Amino acid sequence: MRTQVGIIGAGPAGLMLARLLRLAGIDSIIIENRSEEYIYNRIRAGLLEHWSADVLTEIGVGERMAREGVLHWGNYIGINGELHRLDFQKLVNKRVTIYGQQEVVKDLVARRRADGGDLLFEVDDVSVHDITSERPTIRFTHEGKAKEIACDFIAGCDGFHGICRPSFPEGVLKVFEREYPFGWVGILTESPPPDHELIYNYTDRGFALYTMRSMSVARLYLQCDHDDDIANWPDNRIWDELHTRLGGARELKEGKMLQKGITPMRSFVAEPMQYGRLFLAGDAAHIVPPTGAKGMNLAFADVVFMSRALSAFYKNKRTDLIENYSATCLRRVWKAQRFSWWMTQIMHRFPDETAFDHRRQLAELDYLTSSEAASTSLAEQYVGLPMD
Amino acid sequence: MRTQVGIIGAGPAGLMLARLLRLAGIDSIIIENRSEEYIYNRIRAGLLEHWSADVLTEIGVGERMAREGVLHWGNYIGINGELHRLDFQKLVNKRVTIYGQQEVVKDLVARRRADGGDLLFEVDDVSVHDITSERPTIRFTHEGKAKEIACDFIAGCDGFHGICRPSFPEGVLKVFEREYPFGWVGILTESPPPDHELIYNYTDRGFALYTMRSMSVARLYLQCDHDDDIANWPDNRIWDELHTRLGGARELKEGKMLQKGITPMRSFVAEPMQYGRLFLAGDAAHIVPPTGAKGMNLAFADVVFMSRALSAFYKNKRTDLIENYSATCLRRVWKAQRFSWWMTQIMHRFPDETAFDHRRQLAELDYLTSSEAASTSLAEQYVGLPMD
Repeated sequence: MRTQVGIIGAGPAGLMLARLLRLAGIDSIIIENRSEEYIYNRIRAGLLEHWSADVLTEIGVGERMAREGVLHWGNYIGINGELHRLDFQKLVNKRVTIYGQQEVVKDLVARRRADGGDLLFEVDDVSVHDITSERPTIRFTHEGKAKEIACDFIAGCDGFHGICRPSFPEGVLKVFEREYPFGWVGILTESPPPDHELIYNYTDRGFALYTMRSMSVARLYLQCDHDDDIANWPDNRIWDELHTRLGGARELKEGKMLQKGITPMRSFVAEPMQYGRLFLAGDAAHIVPPTGAKGMNLAFADVVFMSRALSAFYKNKRTDLIENYSATCLRRVWKAQRFSWWMTQIMHRFPDETAFDHRRQLAELDYLTSSEAASTSLAEQYVGLPMD
Repeated sequence: MRTQVGIIGAGPAGLMLARLLRLAGIDSIIIENRSEEYIYNRIRAGLLEHWSADVLTEIGVGERMAREGVLHWGNYIGINGELHRLDFQKLVNKRVTIYGQQEVVKDLVARRRADGGDLLFEVDDVSVHDITSERPTIRFTHEGKAKEIACDFIAGCDGFHGICRPSFPEGVLKVFEREYPFGWVGILTESPPPDHELIYNYTDRGFALYTMRSMSVARLYLQCDHDDDIANWPDNRIWDELHTRLGGARELKEGKMLQKGITPMRSFVAEPMQYGRLFLAGDAAHIVPPTGAKGMNLAFADVVFMSRALSAFYKNKRTDLIENYSATCLRRVWKAQRFSWWMTQIMHRFPDETAFDHRRQLAELDYLTSSEAASTSLAEQYVGLPMD
């Protein structure tokens, strides 16, 4: 098999990249080790920055999102249940779109099928070879047969546990990590969220986030201990704690729990994001704690930069954008990491906090909710910094 | 002796308080354990927030400041010597005034003399008594004689090492502290500063601050080790390091060193700031690291709130402002503590920083200098949040 860009991973990054390349007249093949059904049911992020939604529309996969997605022109910062609305429309005149990652994935797969592009599911034993040459290859097995794709470039969109990042030679990557001393108990429930918009609620008992997949399915989170076990959280304890932390600010309806689990909180960046002709994008290169809702949006930003670089290469033989791919992505990645770290540190109780740090945190929430400049800074990062 | 408000300490807080009370028709006596000469030569802060300068003008002590003070409508954030100007005029349409604390003190003492108010220097053995009664007293010795002032209220403006805070009964105060893992080597030099405006310069070698007392006297600081000794910093090492950290962004002229020393970096807040009829103000209750230039301005804010509370009490028998004095001050104090902590943590190298935290810090400087909202947030806090 032969293609211009071999794409490993059919998540949001790989699928969007394939479409962007297609529009630029560049061929690609996508391979994915999971099944098609699996990727449609993998519940992850559900918030699109303003430009992410715009890109999906521009590339022709925004039709269902326009019908089913929910536009949010603001959200709430709660301080022990006292809610302060951040009015994105007034502050930055931009909105975010609530639309599940698995829905984006379905729309992108449908688009790929309509484009007639190769998309192979349930591949095994994936490996990359000759990445510093001009003809890198991907080897894998599919339906029991060994296959090889000869490529010009390889896009590693295969997530945190994928094979691409570990394929960089020893000593090339520098890793930056932070583990947070807590996790989130998360539930998906057949009941309306307490508000049309998201509520990020700091409480003295710990953080709580009230969000949704739709107006009839709520996604609710509670800060829990770092090594907590979901067995410690029977349904009634979760509901009690969700009610208590909301503090009566809104009515919280209970519903059937569709899903229940514990999410760890971690920041991770691997630098550089390219080696030879292998480029990383999305979770393969970086993980953010979910507080800032940046994961899927960063993956989209990476592949927008990658498609621009590859287009410039194929159209004009320009190599500068390719050479700067990692630096271009990382500038945005680190701002998003900083924002995600900051949202996490102002909203959570830290088990090792000093009395000074706790008062400082409360002062920051006070400042944030009383200053238009500080609210604007949060809003512009939340809806997504400009793609420059 | 008998007065309405006994003021302990003739620093900026005590002297301004006496003038504000005078204008409200309230009597006071100020006592100070240092000599008049000493307080005129105590070199401290030198930056007035916009409203601090306005208050000095309004209360009739702004004449010399208007002539000799330097208005700054912006400052510079340096990243390894690459300077980004924050344009306060454009961002918040407010300015700060560079005018030494000791000059403010001289002007306030002259005003006190013109008012004919009591002001006793070089008192000893100061103590406060019966602070929960309606007639608290101050005892001290002056010119060898034991004295006592019967007061309605006592204002503890006697600094961090004063006797007022320790006069609160055991168990009343809660103390919040943070020590930073570095200090500042500071010099006062007979040479022009490298720029008309302040340069806050992050460098990989540590922070440097280029400021001034006037356009012919520079005040220059270098981040140093926490337990560093000034003996480790001969003049040529200081100049070399100041040049290196400035990185050629401006010309730095060398001059005769008038003063040289190491400043520790600490955050400190004692709560509450009142007990019975004893009220604390300024450094007696809180210390900020000098990075945000907030020390003298917080002292002024405290005594503005105190004078409002005392005026309401004497004019209208209102006690609510008096009862809320501590809470009113602390809301501003904690915002200033947070700002000072934040300025400190974005500008310095931390000896115990992780690789993740260092990258996050650089991303914050990148965001700060590229976002109007973030720049506005810094500017509004730097020139001084509204006095509400």
